[in-house]
Amino acid sequence: MLDQLLAPDLANLLEEGKSDDILDFLRDLHPTAIAEILTGLDPAETLEVMRILGEARAADVFRELPIAYQIDASDLLDTTDLARLVESLDPDDRVDLLKAIPREKFEALLRILAKKERDDIKRLAQFEEGTAGSVMTSEYIALNQDLTVKDSIERIRLEGAEAHSIFMIFAIDEARKLKGAIHLADLILANPEKKLSEIMDARPQSVNALNDREQAAYLFSRYDLVALPVVDADDVLIGLITHDDIIDVLELEQTEDMERFMAITGSHENIPYLHTTIWSHFRNRVGWLVILALLGLVSGAVMQSFEQTLANLMILAFYMPMLTSTGGNTGSQSAAVIVRSLALKEIQTKDGFRVLWKELRVALLLGIVLGALAFARVLLTASASHMQVSGAITALDIGLAIGIALAIQVVASTIIGAALPLGAALLGADPALIASPALTTIVDITGLLIYFTTARMILRI
Amino acid sequence: MLDQLLAPDLANLLEEGKSDDILDFLRDLHPTAIAEILTGLDPAETLEVMRILGEARAADVFRELPIAYQIDASDLLDTTDLARLVESLDPDDRVDLLKAIPREKFEALLRILAKKERDDIKRLAQFEEGTAGSVMTSEYIALNQDLTVKDSIERIRLEGAEAHSIFMIFAIDEARKLKGAIHLADLILANPEKKLSEIMDARPQSVNALNDREQAAYLFSRYDLVALPVVDADDVLIGLITHDDIIDVLELEQTEDMERFMAITGSHENIPYLHTTIWSHFRNRVGWLVILALLGLVSGAVMQSFEQTLANLMILAFYMPMLTSTGGNTGSQSAAVIVRSLALKEIQTKDGFRVLWKELRVALLLGIVLGALAFARVLLTASASHMQVSGAITALDIGLAIGIALAIQVVASTIIGAALPLGAALLGADPALIASPALTTIVDITGLLIYFTTARMILRI
Repeated sequence: MLDQLLAPDLANLLEEGKSDDILDFLRDLHPTAIAEILTGLDPAETLEVMRILGEARAADVFRELPIAYQIDASDLLDTTDLARLVESLDPDDRVDLLKAIPREKFEALLRILAKKERDDIKRLAQFEEGTAGSVMTSEYIALNQDLTVKDSIERIRLEGAEAHSIFMIFAIDEARKLKGAIHLADLILANPEKKLSEIMDARPQSVNALNDREQAAYLFSRYDLVALPVVDADDVLIGLITHDDIIDVLELEQTEDMERFMAITGSHENIPYLHTTIWSHFRNRVGWLVILALLGLVSGAVMQSFEQTLANLMILAFYMPMLTSTGGNTGSQSAAVIVRSLALKEIQTKDGFRVLWKELRVALLLGIVLGALAFARVLLTASASHMQVSGAITALDIGLAIGIALAIQVVASTIIGAALPLGAALLGADPALIASPALTTIVDITGLLIYFTTARMILRI
Repeated sequence: MLDQLLAPDLANLLEEGKSDDILDFLRDLHPTAIAEILTGLDPAETLEVMRILGEARAADVFRELPIAYQIDASDLLDTTDLARLVESLDPDDRVDLLKAIPREKFEALLRILAKKERDDIKRLAQFEEGTAGSVMTSEYIALNQDLTVKDSIERIRLEGAEAHSIFMIFAIDEARKLKGAIHLADLILANPEKKLSEIMDARPQSVNALNDREQAAYLFSRYDLVALPVVDADDVLIGLITHDDIIDVLELEQTEDMERFMAITGSHENIPYLHTTIWSHFRNRVGWLVILALLGLVSGAVMQSFEQTLANLMILAFYMPMLTSTGGNTGSQSAAVIVRSLALKEIQTKDGFRVLWKELRVALLLGIVLGALAFARVLLTASASHMQVSGAITALDIGLAIGIALAIQVVASTIIGAALPLGAALLGADPALIASPALTTIVDITGLLIYFTTARMILRI
C-alpha cells in the first residue's frame, strides 16, 4: 500500500522541515492518493502537510480523508480553519463529520458558517441515521419540466461546475414535485427544441427521505441506478442519493449485519471504532451477553439432572466440550449460509422445506464423518481406568455412544441453525437477528440433552 | 413486497388460461417489477408468462430475473429458445448464467450462437471467478484520442443505442492502449473542435483484469467512480466495470466474508444455494469442523487433568457451559468489531495497542457485570447438598470462585478475540480468516484452564 511505503519518507521530510521537497514529492499526486499517504501520519503531521499544500489543495485532500482522520484533524484545528475545510466538503459528508465532533465545537462552527450552508446542514442533519435522508446530498440539478432541451443544457453549463456528479437530471413542476428523470446521454442526444416532459422517464424510481436507507440500496441494486431522487411525503424533491453514497451504505449495512449476527446491538458505525466511547461499546455488547449467560445456566441444569450418569462415567464429561462446540459450529455454519442466501434473495421463505431437506442431507454426511471420528478417537485413547463402571461397559460401547450422540447433535444443530433464520424471515423479522452466539447457546442445551440421553440408552446407566 | 401480493393472482389467471387478462395486468409494469412478481411463481409458470408477453418483452423480463431463477427457467427451455434469451443478456450476466448451466447445454448453446457472441463469451469466460475480468462487460465506448469532441458525440449517437451505460467514455491510441477517460458531461460542455486528448483525464484509474475484484471495488469506493476501465498487462483496454456491477461484487464479497468468518471454506456464491450440490456444501463445511472437533478434544484433556477437582466439587461442572459459552460470545463480539473496523479502514494494524487497550477496558466492564451476575446466581440457588466437600467451603466461596473465574475469562477472551484478527492483518492475511468457531474453540480451552485454576486457588481443593 502506498501509505505504508511513503508515510515514513514524508514524516522524515517534515521533521527536517523540508517544505519544498514535500511539495515536490506530492505535486503530481491525486488528492485521494495524498489522503491515503496521510493516513500513515499522525494528526499533527497531517495538518502540517496540509498547511504546506496551501488552502485550496488542502481542502481537496481533506475531502478525501476517511472520516476517522477528519475527526482527528478537527480536534487540532481552531473553529475558523475548520469552518473553511467544512465548507469545501460535500453536503452529506459535511453533516457526517459535524455529527461526530463535540457538540460545543459543532455549535461554534454553525455560528460562523454562511447562512446558506447553515440552513443546508440543519436540513440534512434532521434525518435520523439509517434513513434515506441521512445519506442524501443537496447538490443535484432539478429543472422545470417545461424547459426545452436546449435551455436545459444551457442551465447545466451554468449550474454544473461540479460536473462529476451529473449523470441524471430531474424534472420538477412549479411545486418542486418530482415529475421525471432524464439520463444525461439522452438529453444530449435529444432534439434541442423538445421539452423535458417529452423526453423524460415519467415514472422514475424514488425513495421517501424517512424510509430505511436499505430500501434505497435495494432500489440501486435492483434497478441498476446511478442516482436516486429523494422526496418527502408530498413527493417534493428534496435530495439525491448517488451511486458512490450507496457503496458506503452497503458497507455500513454489512457491518450492521455482521455485528447483529455476532450478538452486538446498536452499532459504532456512525462514529469510527476508536472514537466510540468505551461505555457505548460496553452497552452494545452487554445485553445479549447477560441473556445468553442466563440461558447458559440451563445447560448447567441439564447436566445437573444427569448428575448420577456423569458421576458414574466421568469420561462422558471429557467429550462434552467437543460435542457442544461442534454443535455450535455446525449450527452457525448453516445459519450463516441461510442468512446470506435469504439476503441475496437466492432463497425465499416459500423454499423453506427444500432448504431444510437439503441441510438435512448435508448434515447427515457431516454427522457420519464427525461421529466416526469421535468413535475412533474414543477407541484409540480410552484409558482402561474409566471403563470400570459395571464391568459390562467396554470402550467400544462408550465410543459408540459418543459417536452416535455427536452425529445426532450435528444433524439437530444444523437443522436448528437453518430453521431459526427461516422462521425469523417468515415472521417478517431480519434473519440476521438469530445471532450466532444465541444459536450456539441453544444447541448447547439440546446437545447436552441428546448426549446424556443417548449415553444412557446405549450404555444403560 | 410486490411478488408476494401479486404472484397468486397471476397464478390464478394462468390456471384459468386468461392470457389477455395477464397482458392487461402486466402492461404498464417495468420489466424489473414483472421479474419480481415472477420470482413468486414456479419455473413452468414463469415460462408461460414469458410466452404470453412475447419475445421482446420476455427478453427484457428475463434480463431482470435473479440468476437462480434464470437457471431454473433454462432447465426447461430448449437450446434455441434459450439461445435467443441468452443473446439479449448483458455480456457479463450472460457469462455468469452460462457458467452455471450444465456443461453439455453450454456447449450446445455455444454452437448455435453467432460468432461475435461466441467469441465474446469465450473471452469473458476465461477469467476466473473473483478476478476483475470476471465482472467486466465488453459493452463500452472507446474512441481514438485524436478524435474531435464533435466527431466523438457523433460516434456516440451511432454506437450508443444502449445509452443507459454511457457515463464515461475512454480514449485509446492505435494499439488500443488506455490513454484517458472523459466524463460525458465534460464532453458535451467542451469546445466541439478540441481533441479528446486535450480534454481527457490523462491518468484515469484502471484495473488489471487478473487482479482481485475486491481491488476494483476498493477503487470504486475510494475514488467514487461510476465506471472503471479494465486493462491487460500491456495496458490495452479490454473491458469495463460499471457502478451496478460493483454493487453485486460488494454483496458477493460480503457473503464470502460472512461465510469465512463462520468457518466455511470455498463458497456457493457463483451458484445459488439451491443449485449448489450437497457434496459441495458438505466439502465447504467439513474441513474446519474436523479441525475444530480435534481441537475440542483438548478442552476434554484439560478437564481430565482436573478430574479430581471436578469429582470433589461437582457443582463446578454445572457452571462450565455458561463459562465457556460466555467466553465464546465475548470473543466473537470483539473479533467481529475488529474485523469490520479493519475492513472499513477505521483502524489499521499500527493502531493495535490502542485497540487492545480499548477492548481491555470494555472487557473489564463486561467482566464485572457478568462476574457479579454469576456470583449472585450461585448464592441464590446453590443447593446445600453440593457444598459439603470439606465442610470449610461455603456457597460464598464457590460463588466467589465462579464469579472471579468468569470475569477473568471474559477479559481473556475479549482480548484474544481482538488480538487474533489484528495478528492476521499484521501478517498480511485476511482478518476474517480468524473464524468465529475457531475462536470459540480456542477460548473454550483457555476458559477451562482459567476456571479450574481459579477454583483450585480460591477453594484450595
